[in-house]
Amino acid sequence: MRKTLKSPVLAPFAALALVASAVAQRPNVPAPVISPEVTADRQVTFRVLAPKAESVRLAGSDLPGIGQGKDMAKGTNNVWEVTLGPLPPGSYRYHFNVDGVAVLDPRNPRTSESNENSWSLVHVPGADWQDTLDVPHGAVAQVTYWSSTLKKFRRLHVYTPPGYEAGTEKYPVFYLLHGAFDSDNSWSTVGRAGIILDNLIAAGKAKPMVVVMPHGHTGPFRMGGAGLSGEFEPEFVADILPLIEKRYRVHTDRTQRALAGLSMGGGHTLNIGIPHLHKFAYLGVFSSGVFGIVPRPGAPAPQGPGFEERHQAILDDAKLKEGLKLFWFATGKDDFLVETTRATVEMFKRHKFDVVYRETDGAHTWDKWREYLHEFAPQLFR
Amino acid sequence: MRKTLKSPVLAPFAALALVASAVAQRPNVPAPVISPEVTADRQVTFRVLAPKAESVRLAGSDLPGIGQGKDMAKGTNNVWEVTLGPLPPGSYRYHFNVDGVAVLDPRNPRTSESNENSWSLVHVPGADWQDTLDVPHGAVAQVTYWSSTLKKFRRLHVYTPPGYEAGTEKYPVFYLLHGAFDSDNSWSTVGRAGIILDNLIAAGKAKPMVVVMPHGHTGPFRMGGAGLSGEFEPEFVADILPLIEKRYRVHTDRTQRALAGLSMGGGHTLNIGIPHLHKFAYLGVFSSGVFGIVPRPGAPAPQGPGFEERHQAILDDAKLKEGLKLFWFATGKDDFLVETTRATVEMFKRHKFDVVYRETDGAHTWDKWREYLHEFAPQLFR
Repeated sequence: MRKTLKSPVLAPFAALALVASAVAQRPNVPAPVISPEVTADRQVTFRVLAPKAESVRLAGSDLPGIGQGKDMAKGTNNVWEVTLGPLPPGSYRYHFNVDGVAVLDPRNPRTSESNENSWSLVHVPGADWQDTLDVPHGAVAQVTYWSSTLKKFRRLHVYTPPGYEAGTEKYPVFYLLHGAFDSDNSWSTVGRAGIILDNLIAAGKAKPMVVVMPHGHTGPFRMGGAGLSGEFEPEFVADILPLIEKRYRVHTDRTQRALAGLSMGGGHTLNIGIPHLHKFAYLGVFSSGVFGIVPRPGAPAPQGPGFEERHQAILDDAKLKEGLKLFWFATGKDDFLVETTRATVEMFKRHKFDVVYRETDGAHTWDKWREYLHEFAPQLFR
Repeated sequence: MRKTLKSPVLAPFAALALVASAVAQRPNVPAPVISPEVTADRQVTFRVLAPKAESVRLAGSDLPGIGQGKDMAKGTNNVWEVTLGPLPPGSYRYHFNVDGVAVLDPRNPRTSESNENSWSLVHVPGADWQDTLDVPHGAVAQVTYWSSTLKKFRRLHVYTPPGYEAGTEKYPVFYLLHGAFDSDNSWSTVGRAGIILDNLIAAGKAKPMVVVMPHGHTGPFRMGGAGLSGEFEPEFVADILPLIEKRYRVHTDRTQRALAGLSMGGGHTLNIGIPHLHKFAYLGVFSSGVFGIVPRPGAPAPQGPGFEERHQAILDDAKLKEGLKLFWFATGKDDFLVETTRATVEMFKRHKFDVVYRETDGAHTWDKWREYLHEFAPQLFR
């Protein structure tokens, strides 16, 4: 039964609304356009009020079938609209392109950060494993810290499982890294990491664990710029790992540490995990591999052989490999990095690593990365 | 000393960037416009690329001196720009109005949620108490829960002080409510609650405490709509308070509970705090009071006297009042609710409450609410 107070409580707020709308210095509030609207059959309608626009398009990094964007049609009241679907269940980042300007949905409070911009975010329910269900929920915290490596303030996200905040037990810890078009916020928004873990833990399919989601860029994402300069890896080792092990109740032995990432974060995983193999018993590489192992036209000289040579001693250390309980790769058949993944897997197999490689359908998109997380997390800390 | 890996690590990512930009299905990335740009003397320049726009304006709820918006000028490369300042130190929400469309800054990943939309967010440093400093930092978590009162999933934010996650001690708990143009995210973004608490705790000026920031709307913000229907108050008592006391290490006696809110949240504070006065030893009302206590043209019949009559027994209970250690009001002289505050304070004084009333400069804006938090929090749990 829904409990409500009686009308004497309602009217004062109505008075406030009247007063506020008349007096407060607020920008004009647009007419109550509904956007996005998700129906039970997973049709999604996007709408934006744009009275003077000549062209409005819907754009999204992972929206199926819209390519570089989809034209929206101008309807009554200057509202442009387009309907997609039925869409596969999942979360999608999108924005509108209004006469060349990238516009977040003014009617949708939910956003998902990239390194240098934000997207609007819509969730299409229909897949229990990534929907918000009535199970015990963990918490996803933002933590600000001073990076002694980078000499600046940094932020990371931490998932704590249900029961953490009132309990006393120690948990295993899983470091989960994002890609080049993301930030530390991405796994918790479009990636739904907290929700996926909640559901796995509630079903007894994954061990309760702390999941740490750092920010992998160290500056703007430019070719050769700070974000890709190799600054993140030493920061991870010198700042992030000690910070987490000091401020959270986590186990600190190798068997209780996992590390995985997608795309750029898969590269980070290999660049951190292999030189520090004694620290991690579980490594996951999603849609990624050793960058440069496959030469590409126009790209700088391949660095794959460099990676192998630099880490020769570790790659051939049988005892280190013995302690690596899971070395898991997954990439879609249509992913532009599938050859990189294959070559990387082959390299590790050459060095007698017991690699698990899942080549799935799909491409370089968040639907796959949510699936990979859902498949990888249950295998940890067993 | 900044540590960097050598160039062999750099080049693979450059290869990724080349490949990614050539292959990935991404919307066109705008030229690298810098926005917002904050200088050391607190000038802030806002820029947006809008090639076809006829009119671009900067809008913000609290930006000083821009009223309903400020025209931006079109410069080279179709980039519109305006410079404000020097601005008072603090955080500001803003967006662009491009030919009538509300546009978040496409070059700024930081946002602040309202109930029905998001704003871009910029912080202007210069006031130590609300700047990010190299002190121990707490964490701000998002928690999803099922509301038995509202029969839907809800979200709240929780600040845990430095040391919480690795410790075992119990803390006092401060419930901090937002206004009608906000969401549970607002106190942690534009309100900088976590940063303000970090600084107060580090300076020994406030006790370490857990701060809970629920979502005060229960639906869209409409006159007489669900968000203002009085649904929040019973949800707070039946769901939020028990949830927090179950899942966090907090003390559960009256002397260790505080409740405060701004504007609509100040109304919530009185609607919850007075009927449940036995639960709270500290109440704070920022830019607010009993709504309707002062009749206003066009507003529904005043409900102030109703409030007084409904709570007569509590208002005149000397023992209950004795346990109320602080009943603190603050409102700016130019706030549109200043008369409401004054009348509310008078009403409580008539009932022999020991009210502290701070009438400050300023109006109904976030700079004041950050200041009030900074002044109120040190007085708690003494």
